[in-house]
Amino acid sequence: MPNPTAAMLVIGDEILSGRTRDTNTHHLANALTARGIRLREVRVVADDHDAIVLAVNALRAGYDQVFTSGGIGPTHDDITADAVAAAFGAPIGVREDAHQILRDHYQRTGLELNEMRLRMARIPEGATLIDNPISAAPGFTLGNVHVMAGVPAIFEAMVAGVLPLLTGGDPLLSQMIDVHRGEGEIARPLADLAARFPALSFGSYPYQRNGAYGTQLVVRGTDAGQLDAAMVELAKLAAHS
Amino acid sequence: MPNPTAAMLVIGDEILSGRTRDTNTHHLANALTARGIRLREVRVVADDHDAIVLAVNALRAGYDQVFTSGGIGPTHDDITADAVAAAFGAPIGVREDAHQILRDHYQRTGLELNEMRLRMARIPEGATLIDNPISAAPGFTLGNVHVMAGVPAIFEAMVAGVLPLLTGGDPLLSQMIDVHRGEGEIARPLADLAARFPALSFGSYPYQRNGAYGTQLVVRGTDAGQLDAAMVELAKLAAHS
Repeated sequence: MPNPTAAMLVIGDEILSGRTRDTNTHHLANALTARGIRLREVRVVADDHDAIVLAVNALRAGYDQVFTSGGIGPTHDDITADAVAAAFGAPIGVREDAHQILRDHYQRTGLELNEMRLRMARIPEGATLIDNPISAAPGFTLGNVHVMAGVPAIFEAMVAGVLPLLTGGDPLLSQMIDVHRGEGEIARPLADLAARFPALSFGSYPYQRNGAYGTQLVVRGTDAGQLDAAMVELAKLAAHS
Repeated sequence: MPNPTAAMLVIGDEILSGRTRDTNTHHLANALTARGIRLREVRVVADDHDAIVLAVNALRAGYDQVFTSGGIGPTHDDITADAVAAAFGAPIGVREDAHQILRDHYQRTGLELNEMRLRMARIPEGATLIDNPISAAPGFTLGNVHVMAGVPAIFEAMVAGVLPLLTGGDPLLSQMIDVHRGEGEIARPLADLAARFPALSFGSYPYQRNGAYGTQLVVRGTDAGQLDAAMVELAKLAAHS
């Protein structure tokens, strides 16, 4: 059975302006790979209603699972929940279960659950809440779209909560080997190997270390036996260098 | 006049598998902001012909400039040049000017310009070459699409070569201030300010430092006078905290 596919949607002007470096994609990529789910596409869009709706609808139609990051806080530019609801044509409002979570949290911390914080309890009809063990305000899953916070520690906690609920696939294995030659020297035998092992994917990544050129060869796939067979061939390649 | 817009397309299985962390987007975001060009969307796709063609055509239709990163090396999975040519319906083959650049480079370095390395001289008809001061193999500009290497040092050198040729816009200015309160406390006055200054964009980024909660407020725009006026108001907000 082929591995399930996924896409990531990062929402945030601060990534596009260069103020902030997105680290959530890299975290999700590794978590999905470990779970046998193939991350096939990432998009970053601005805090813009139409851009979010468009991206959500394109990605949820194209992939088995979609993960979003950002735009679910209390401020005026936190518009992700409303945009995702609009993408599904689902009604949205303050939901009692989410409201209760916020009431408990702000009672405990002694802060006021004001009108803007209450925005974080706006959840589309039909969605399931995603637990936020750090700052309470929940994410949610609607259809195949998982809506999560942008703050990395919260995003990562939410991913840890969501992933076990999803159907995974055969683990995506990878092995690598360094070859002390430039990429162009081994490109031909590598292409021949790739043709002999069509179920595996072969990547080559040139590097320069202490002034010497080399290439890291990475082979990925789900069949451990084929992976081992391919590594024997790659090791021969490396030995000739 | 509104600022020109741009999109970035990152091509590479290694980003999606989590092996490599993309740093080119962050570099480009800052370079574009300094030049007054608004980065509005980023996509990451796999080393897959159809996925690249689809993304190139969507982005070049939607934005003034498109920058791609990755997939222009000598190996079998370097398929960006052919995919971009296909997206434009442009013929592609080894072009004499690019061939000459590679001949000179490999003569100088004493390495063989073999059949796979020659793939790096495949340039679509009608494209302009982008200089590669590091490893010679050129990028190219076709229409509003700038095709560049994925290796960060080469990508950055190519960006430095391309950006001065593009029409920029009024510089995108930003100012920031720290408020020693949670995001939810200042969300209301911040929303009111955002409504009073519709030409500016206001972002708020919660942080936790030495156990204390705070929020960094960032205001962005092209009108320095308005930016200063908004900062006076933000400073009042901060003083009340």
